[in-house]
Amino acid sequence: MRAIAVHRGEESPRVIDVPTPEPADGEVLVKTLRVGVDGTDHEVIKGTHGGFPPGDDYQILGHEAIGVVVDPTTTGFEEGDIVIPTVRRPPDGTNEYFERGEPDMAPDGKYLERGIVDAHGYMSEYFTSAAEFLVEIPESLAPHGFLVEPMSNAEKAIQHAFATRAAFSWEPESALVLGNGPLGLLTLARLARDVDDLYCLGRRDRPDPSIDIIEKLGATYVDSRETPVPEIPTEYGHVDIAIEATGYAKHAFEVLDALAPNGVGALLGVPSDWEFEIDGGRLHREMVLQNKALVGSVNSHIPHFEMAIDTVSSLPDWFIDDVVTEVVPAADPSAAFERNKEQIKTAVEFVPPSER
Amino acid sequence: MRAIAVHRGEESPRVIDVPTPEPADGEVLVKTLRVGVDGTDHEVIKGTHGGFPPGDDYQILGHEAIGVVVDPTTTGFEEGDIVIPTVRRPPDGTNEYFERGEPDMAPDGKYLERGIVDAHGYMSEYFTSAAEFLVEIPESLAPHGFLVEPMSNAEKAIQHAFATRAAFSWEPESALVLGNGPLGLLTLARLARDVDDLYCLGRRDRPDPSIDIIEKLGATYVDSRETPVPEIPTEYGHVDIAIEATGYAKHAFEVLDALAPNGVGALLGVPSDWEFEIDGGRLHREMVLQNKALVGSVNSHIPHFEMAIDTVSSLPDWFIDDVVTEVVPAADPSAAFERNKEQIKTAVEFVPPSER
Repeated sequence: MRAIAVHRGEESPRVIDVPTPEPADGEVLVKTLRVGVDGTDHEVIKGTHGGFPPGDDYQILGHEAIGVVVDPTTTGFEEGDIVIPTVRRPPDGTNEYFERGEPDMAPDGKYLERGIVDAHGYMSEYFTSAAEFLVEIPESLAPHGFLVEPMSNAEKAIQHAFATRAAFSWEPESALVLGNGPLGLLTLARLARDVDDLYCLGRRDRPDPSIDIIEKLGATYVDSRETPVPEIPTEYGHVDIAIEATGYAKHAFEVLDALAPNGVGALLGVPSDWEFEIDGGRLHREMVLQNKALVGSVNSHIPHFEMAIDTVSSLPDWFIDDVVTEVVPAADPSAAFERNKEQIKTAVEFVPPSER
Repeated sequence: MRAIAVHRGEESPRVIDVPTPEPADGEVLVKTLRVGVDGTDHEVIKGTHGGFPPGDDYQILGHEAIGVVVDPTTTGFEEGDIVIPTVRRPPDGTNEYFERGEPDMAPDGKYLERGIVDAHGYMSEYFTSAAEFLVEIPESLAPHGFLVEPMSNAEKAIQHAFATRAAFSWEPESALVLGNGPLGLLTLARLARDVDDLYCLGRRDRPDPSIDIIEKLGATYVDSRETPVPEIPTEYGHVDIAIEATGYAKHAFEVLDALAPNGVGALLGVPSDWEFEIDGGRLHREMVLQNKALVGSVNSHIPHFEMAIDTVSSLPDWFIDDVVTEVVPAADPSAAFERNKEQIKTAVEFVPPSER
């Protein structure tokens, strides 16, 4: 079958031919429909994040998949069910994090990630998965179901941010998303369900399609070149919740200045080492005297996928049309991996809707 | 009546004579028994934290009080009830934070603090308080009830730290307290109720009474001069929860390295501005990939006082005897404000137990 993989020593993915996987009992064979591309895929391609499956000199990409069940074996699924796979898998049988349904909280070494960490991904005509890692979604979500996995990461970050504020009365009235890439825009759309006063930070010139989406969502675009994060309160007011989706390490600390008293910042980016100076005394004092919190969040699991299905189902059609800028055939997928300012979210298509 | 106050331009508190307050209806007149002294009092004396009541050139000290009701006016209290006052008061009538019983979450300008911010404290023979800011405690706690207010700050920090981890299964097995002052030791004793594997960081040479207490609690003393915070994992292992009670700003960030995956650091100190370098990229990445959290916590309110009453009631007698190193008569209180390594927690006594 056709698969899209990155090879050791190569800088761009290519189409390869691999054997079609055979599902064991308890596994499901899924025919892939579409697979989204995100920043993590680019890091895997560059070799800066994750790792190849042991013994292989290539890695099949893709962790944002949607597909249709073609062989449910002994599982409760039925042929034709539309499903989304989660990302993490146990490295050896299982472990406590998987047993209690929280693989997203597993530490290093206690998980593989399909398409990212030591395991092949979903960018192939077929993939297999244990039934417990598949979430069924409504047929209507099939075309853009690949947005569920990235949205589930936003759901987890927001869930954990709210948890930090659970010991007192807290209803955020304003929210800031740092980053106007696909994850930033999905997070902004998610927050728009609960919060009226919305801001999204980027560093793009107009005209720009992401700025158009920000403004169509009713949010204010903050150009970080004109208004650095610490100046946001002066220019726009403090925010109750901020979600960092830039991977720019200074934002993780600067965001404390943008938060209102009792506010929380959730971090989603994965920066490299970088030493820089902060006014640690002031930030420490402000966190204490104003009861602020900072929380890191990675990955997501079934409950977050379920929240994300609900959220993606509620997204306006225009948002999906504008965010998904390109769906590329798997036979010639290179355009899905190009990065330019006109492209926001791309996906690789294995089966066009007309051929399902 | 006799009161202990700091005067503008003076560096040590002295005994003064002020009119005995008259309770309005709905207020309670309390005869003060004992008032604890802590680091915040020293900051108030130095003028580095808080502020004098508007129009006054002195401030009556003290926010860790215990007393006995002598005039309950129209309130539900009865003469002879043993009570502890909370610290924050509304500056103008009331506001939303006080109305919903969460003055500890009020931002700057929305609260006064008795003995700290713009209001006189409790170090006087009598004080008045609205009934809603008094907590009744059992008679048995009268001698060391002044430990309830500082313990309530630990309770709030621990409550908020646990809240940050509420979205998943989390039971801390190891805990680190940064700081071996009175608040650090009280926090350590509180954590000893739930956690077996305990560490407390200080920078004192043996023999030292605080190190003795740490070890009698079954905890391990960590000398920060030998084992700086980032080296704690190598030397002792990672910890699930850490509470910072040093006010040393670098600890607020270094503590992230000491935390196990899914761990949380709670900050209680109030440092001054201080610029220093951190590896912000690495700390940001570790917070995300290991789901770590950091939360600031200040002050406390009725529910935390109630938790603290329960905790202080359960403290072993030896702990209270060892922590409360000096109880000084109000007529000559200077020894309560001296700082030396033999002193841990001091209190000023207005009425000896024998004269109650």
